[in-house]
Amino acid sequence: MTSPNIETAINILKQRFGDRLSMAASVRQHHSHTTTQISSELPDAVVFAHSTEEVAAVVSICQEYTCPIIPFGIGSSLEGHVNAPKGGVSIDMNAMDKVLAVHEEDLNAVVQPGVTREALNTHLRDKGLFFPIDPGANASLGGMAATRASGTNAVRYGTMKDNIIALEAVMADGKVIRTGSRAKKSSAGYDLTRLLIGSEGTLGIITELTVKLHGIPETIAGGICSFPSIEAACNAVITTIQYGIPVARMELLDAVQVQACNQYSGLDLPEETLLLVEFHGTESSVREQSEMFGEISSEYTPHSFQWTTDPEERAKLWKARHDAFWAAMALLPGGQGISTDVCVPISRLAECVEETRRDIEATGIIAPIVGHVGDGNFHTLPMALPDDAETWAKIKGFSERLSERAITMGGTCTGEHGIGQGKIAYLRKEMGPAVDVMIAIKKALDHDDILNPGKLFGA
Amino acid sequence: MTSPNIETAINILKQRFGDRLSMAASVRQHHSHTTTQISSELPDAVVFAHSTEEVAAVVSICQEYTCPIIPFGIGSSLEGHVNAPKGGVSIDMNAMDKVLAVHEEDLNAVVQPGVTREALNTHLRDKGLFFPIDPGANASLGGMAATRASGTNAVRYGTMKDNIIALEAVMADGKVIRTGSRAKKSSAGYDLTRLLIGSEGTLGIITELTVKLHGIPETIAGGICSFPSIEAACNAVITTIQYGIPVARMELLDAVQVQACNQYSGLDLPEETLLLVEFHGTESSVREQSEMFGEISSEYTPHSFQWTTDPEERAKLWKARHDAFWAAMALLPGGQGISTDVCVPISRLAECVEETRRDIEATGIIAPIVGHVGDGNFHTLPMALPDDAETWAKIKGFSERLSERAITMGGTCTGEHGIGQGKIAYLRKEMGPAVDVMIAIKKALDHDDILNPGKLFGA
Repeated sequence: MTSPNIETAINILKQRFGDRLSMAASVRQHHSHTTTQISSELPDAVVFAHSTEEVAAVVSICQEYTCPIIPFGIGSSLEGHVNAPKGGVSIDMNAMDKVLAVHEEDLNAVVQPGVTREALNTHLRDKGLFFPIDPGANASLGGMAATRASGTNAVRYGTMKDNIIALEAVMADGKVIRTGSRAKKSSAGYDLTRLLIGSEGTLGIITELTVKLHGIPETIAGGICSFPSIEAACNAVITTIQYGIPVARMELLDAVQVQACNQYSGLDLPEETLLLVEFHGTESSVREQSEMFGEISSEYTPHSFQWTTDPEERAKLWKARHDAFWAAMALLPGGQGISTDVCVPISRLAECVEETRRDIEATGIIAPIVGHVGDGNFHTLPMALPDDAETWAKIKGFSERLSERAITMGGTCTGEHGIGQGKIAYLRKEMGPAVDVMIAIKKALDHDDILNPGKLFGA
Repeated sequence: MTSPNIETAINILKQRFGDRLSMAASVRQHHSHTTTQISSELPDAVVFAHSTEEVAAVVSICQEYTCPIIPFGIGSSLEGHVNAPKGGVSIDMNAMDKVLAVHEEDLNAVVQPGVTREALNTHLRDKGLFFPIDPGANASLGGMAATRASGTNAVRYGTMKDNIIALEAVMADGKVIRTGSRAKKSSAGYDLTRLLIGSEGTLGIITELTVKLHGIPETIAGGICSFPSIEAACNAVITTIQYGIPVARMELLDAVQVQACNQYSGLDLPEETLLLVEFHGTESSVREQSEMFGEISSEYTPHSFQWTTDPEERAKLWKARHDAFWAAMALLPGGQGISTDVCVPISRLAECVEETRRDIEATGIIAPIVGHVGDGNFHTLPMALPDDAETWAKIKGFSERLSERAITMGGTCTGEHGIGQGKIAYLRKEMGPAVDVMIAIKKALDHDDILNPGKLFGA
């Protein structure tokens, strides 16, 4: 049942946007579809915005009628961020997909929020520059900012919070703000850039981003090494970071995931813990880094470290990682998986992964483990057949224990996916009274709770 | 005139803190003294806190009587941050000076806010770790966080916002919050860590910091190179950064500053623009970086690049930079200087520095220029005799034009010093309606305006 207020707002929006407002069930369904087990909650309408002015107009109209607005990128978020638990209007930002400027001398670019990370990198390729943040999906940069996304490169290049200089956003009152200048650093007032990054569309709608760029490295070395235990692999990771080796990627696959990759991709890796590393730099510097890593790893494993700077050979070595998701899914044909996302201090990583592995076995579920271990962040992918209620119940319990385990170890229930609807209970457990401060900010900036209501803090 | 409310609050605090509350004029004077031309505005009392609980108690009492509280570190801020324009209580955090934990495996440390950067680095020395942020003064880490400080290392290691994982803070209602876990990254809710960093004591009082540490580099190379023009030097900087050379420090002295250093330190540097660079890494990597920089600089200057990894030789090469402040002050014996602090996109840096140099000459003031040019941040130090009202008026006009010039070029009026009282007018010019969002947050979290009132936004 659409509320009368929402209906009025949609009628007014319809007059303004015509064909660019849709109430078709399939369109509404698509805009609440997320890669999650959380049930879809459809918006009442979807509006396709083409400009900041249009976003501001949508917000102003919705503000007047207290109509919820849910910003939508490509829908690859994992915690129900694009659901519409209170109905309202999904605002699709995909048409705002222009790279507005590339400032090569300043190593930054100004982009609209619908630009995807792959589109930006394609645009940049002939300039010798790239944008490093790479969550698995080809997500929109606006969505990546809203969830404070990261991915495999974060150990070297940081997360979205480290790679955005300034934002333009439409706030709940319809006003457009700019959160920073184009200067690389500033001490001018509150850091609204970082406040909006990770706010999951609840404080403002991001309409433009100034992102940092990096030079494409002269040479990339990739390598792999097997370890007799998770602990041995984690110790190699800790030592590597303590030595200050500027590793660009450092990924862990546990034995179950390696087994899955062997089966799926026809590899013959030892079915033990696998570390995959990547180094960026000049030819001599990546050689030095690789050799240093080889020495470090030799203290923790009898297996040798294989590495190469040849792009094709490198792709072969990293094949297990590239195919990891599909290899995992192939463990249960017809099954679905959900991705967990804890992050702990690296000193607790081995313990956390080991305990999680034991929990998986005790619970009797299928759940390979893949980790961005340089950051202490790892994902399990527990799987079940869609109608297997018993296993889904087990998975729910497992996920809850995992979040609590990470929090108890001084970590977080979410390293890069966000809270959305799925982790609301853990936000309070993890952050305590800080959540009240967040809610006070939310109320101050959006007193009628029209921006992505029901996320982060619950109803 | 102390207001009756403030008097009551102080009486209650006196009962609790006894000798640790002072109303002596000299103590009050010391706590409003800042390195600035802004006149001192004394608090009514100074209380010396020893613990988070005591800070919370002070805030709760002051909250009840609407008594302003001004957090005080070592008083090295430059924009009147520690002044008490509405009276109230200065809360001195210096006794909270413990390093609570060093987590070597996680490369972080938990410290109280009164720990200075030098004290932390002394504490860390035998562990092979260091904390990189180095504003000129031996500031307290709490104060550095509050002003979002940076310094010469920021081009490589970032600013305070990049080097803090979590904070504990007492909010205006006396509640103690923790803004993050010990995990390296998180997507759990609003980034209150970054909101407090740079909030200048107006949103909460920082009582504990979890800071990132870095391994002391195996080798440090330092070098200098003269350039025929500011533009030539800036072009060398831009090229260096585009090449992805991970330069650790990159400082510029303009010809006037070099002249001052020659006189003061008995050097014979060419009286032209000077770049000083530093590289951190393994021996072979700093050699490679130095050689690459030498090649780059040779395209922009006939002078050769001199560099060394020998610590004593390095100190000699960098002597001009180390003595820059005192060399500058020696240009006007008995004079005082104030430091300006603009930061612009690096593509506009040469133009901004050149225009500023012309303005200095046209205005007829003494003002050497020193810059953290890898970040596009530079300082001028206009000087005058204390009672030379005419020159101070000129300096005021010059500073205003400089801030406006930076903002017009897409930059900021403050790269690292903060807004305080001195730059309030520019915050609005630079950030526009975003300031209203900041004020809404301030009102939501401190509705009676007791935390460092009169800063950032004015009365």
